[in-house]
Amino acid sequence: MEAKRSLLAIFLLLSFLSISTAAPTRKTRTRKPCKSMVFYFHDIIYNGHNAKNATSAIVGSPQWGNKTILTGQNHFGDLVVFDDPITLDNNLHSKPVGRAQGFYIYDKKDIFTAWLGFSFVFNSTQHKGSINFAGADPLMNKTRDISVIGGTGDFFMARGVATLMTDAFEGE
Amino acid sequence: MEAKRSLLAIFLLLSFLSISTAAPTRKTRTRKPCKSMVFYFHDIIYNGHNAKNATSAIVGSPQWGNKTILTGQNHFGDLVVFDDPITLDNNLHSKPVGRAQGFYIYDKKDIFTAWLGFSFVFNSTQHKGSINFAGADPLMNKTRDISVIGGTGDFFMARGVATLMTDAFEGE
Amino acid sequence: MEAKRSLLAIFLLLSFLSISTAAPTRKTRTRKPCKSMVFYFHDIIYNGHNAKNATSAIVGSPQWGNKTILTGQNHFGDLVVFDDPITLDNNLHSKPVGRAQGFYIYDKKDIFTAWLGFSFVFNSTQHKGSINFAGADPLMNKTRDISVIGGTGDFFMARGVATLMTDAFEGE
Repeated sequence: MEAKRSLLAIFLLLSFLSISTAAPTRKTRTRKPCKSMVFYFHDIIYNGHNAKNATSAIVGSPQWGNKTILTGQNHFGDLVVFDDPITLDNNLHSKPVGRAQGFYIYDKKDIFTAWLGFSFVFNSTQHKGSINFAGADPLMNKTRDISVIGGTGDFFMARGVATLMTDAFEGE
Repeated sequence: MEAKRSLLAIFLLLSFLSISTAAPTRKTRTRKPCKSMVFYFHDIIYNGHNAKNATSAIVGSPQWGNKTILTGQNHFGDLVVFDDPITLDNNLHSKPVGRAQGFYIYDKKDIFTAWLGFSFVFNSTQHKGSINFAGADPLMNKTRDISVIGGTGDFFMARGVATLMTDAFEGE
Repeated sequence: MEAKRSLLAIFLLLSFLSISTAAPTRKTRTRKPCKSMVFYFHDIIYNGHNAKNATSAIVGSPQWGNKTILTGQNHFGDLVVFDDPITLDNNLHSKPVGRAQGFYIYDKKDIFTAWLGFSFVFNSTQHKGSINFAGADPLMNKTRDISVIGGTGDFFMARGVATLMTDAFEGE
């Protein structure tokens, strides 16, 4: 019963919409993101033996599942809560610049797919505030886009997409 | 213990916001949706006996509930994960054009009401990408609006509302 | 085993984006919210003995938790569904003007922090429609911002932030 450990790279394309925007009169229509960022986050799921290291835990499961082993049928129905460190490179032991906090639910029987709702929470000299994400995450695709649904602080009114990539995967 | 089966019709009014929009100088303020679509999706909840057909399952429940029968008090507290086929008409056996994936939580004791978080995931020649939804769904109302909170691929920067309608309902 | 009861004050800064906005030609860039509102909502969690008064219940918990007592480690992993009355002042017995419906998940082991997904549902002469919220809620901060991710009815196309403040707290 080895711990499942995954490392995700996330590429952010953020747009900040301002209200009652006074626009120039030219008809040009540019669509460049105001900010683009790359982060890594590290997920270690609780398996009954790693309470100290685990950054996530199963908190809901279907009738045939349990809370320490992800179920069969591609984990369909398992609900996982996480609080993962965010780093600027792919080293778990780098100094975290924030936390990725939220949940995912595996939602398909025949392939790995999840629905994500989570936030990046920053409280450093570079960034203060949070970015909120939601959407479908088809885990078997090399890159997957989810929506930026809002932000607070430095990320007030943020919108756009975040591209997720599994950088490394251990266990199972 | 018959399977609960429901058929939902969904009407989408999507708006695609572009960033740094260069607007014309006239003061007209039109609010027409860029895209309007109708889809159907089909939900068959797991009841302990229909593992093969079920498209959804109870994965969380209050202390007085369980994972195979929706609880009393209008199912308050039941959390259901789903992966439902989307079709263009109200026939369950039509060829799916995508999947509706996510969760709902029944959240009121005295009437049926749920909170939804889900995505439409398309991967066909017509549509590629996903539309993400969230919001309250007062199931007893004939039509209910939930928010489009974002999109990816063809639906990048989508916003607006989706109107849900229960088209047919079986069981219970 | 006393009931946990909390009273939250919420300050809304809403922006309503219109589509294809025809903007004036001046270069001014104002960012004032179209609407600002204050509400209170009241959460009483189910503890096994208060079924009649409780407005929320634990429906998911980690392996070491249960459904009637919030777990140790700052409730990490507890998923709570709620249907709380909204009032215009901080008196639980005032006439509700709407309901706050949705869920929160405690998502950090070393301090109180939650991820929220919920809606304000209004059906009165003043307001009809719903406002949808999502985001991280660091409960130990005096004020916390979460995102407005959309709205329906009177709140169609709403965006912005909501500031949460714990006004009073009992039990535990």
